[in-house]
Amino acid sequence: MDVSCCVPLAERRVPAEAAAVLAPAFKALGDPVRLQLLSMIASAESGEICVCDLTPAFDLTGPTISHHLRTLREAGLVDAERRGTWVYYRARTGILRQLAALLTVAPAT
Amino acid sequence: MDVSCCVPLAERRVPAEAAAVLAPAFKALGDPVRLQLLSMIASAESGEICVCDLTPAFDLTGPTISHHLRTLREAGLVDAERRGTWVYYRARTGILRQLAALLTVAPAT
Repeated sequence: MDVSCCVPLAERRVPAEAAAVLAPAFKALGDPVRLQLLSMIASAESGEICVCDLTPAFDLTGPTISHHLRTLREAGLVDAERRGTWVYYRARTGILRQLAALLTVAPAT
Repeated sequence: MDVSCCVPLAERRVPAEAAAVLAPAFKALGDPVRLQLLSMIASAESGEICVCDLTPAFDLTGPTISHHLRTLREAGLVDAERRGTWVYYRARTGILRQLAALLTVAPAT
């Protein structure tokens, strides 16, 4: 991804190309369940977490959780790897850093 | 807003209440035009920008730009103030800091 993605949006106008690349990631974050799922994945102690540990944490069906996980994966926010019966998820920290950098504003004075 | 909103999501699971509050802000950012609009507002030299300076920057109709600006305002990302003929927009930096803090991950090692 072009480095222009990571200039804070408070410094200069986000180029259209960077906006087109980053908006889908923000859109994927725009759901409370997906925010919590991503958080559980990103904070997993071993760096990854089994879908079998994610699903019971919500009062939602397996297919609904799978749908949210697919959305996170398609937005480039997580990687998924099947090992045996289960799928394991891992956060893609590079894009999280890019999104955080984009939203950075100078400290309040 | 509860301070639990600002613990990085890579440190611990985002509480459901914080996720419910912050997800709509991410959703509002999930559109390339809105990302660019917010960036133009946040990077305005005087700290605010007239809608009359925003609209010509896009190949979109006035009502479409107004719709996107309303979405940003309803998500708490910008403030709007009418003065005379025009509406002036200003970024709400507090929520941008909260969103950036939430997405913060440790530097790559």
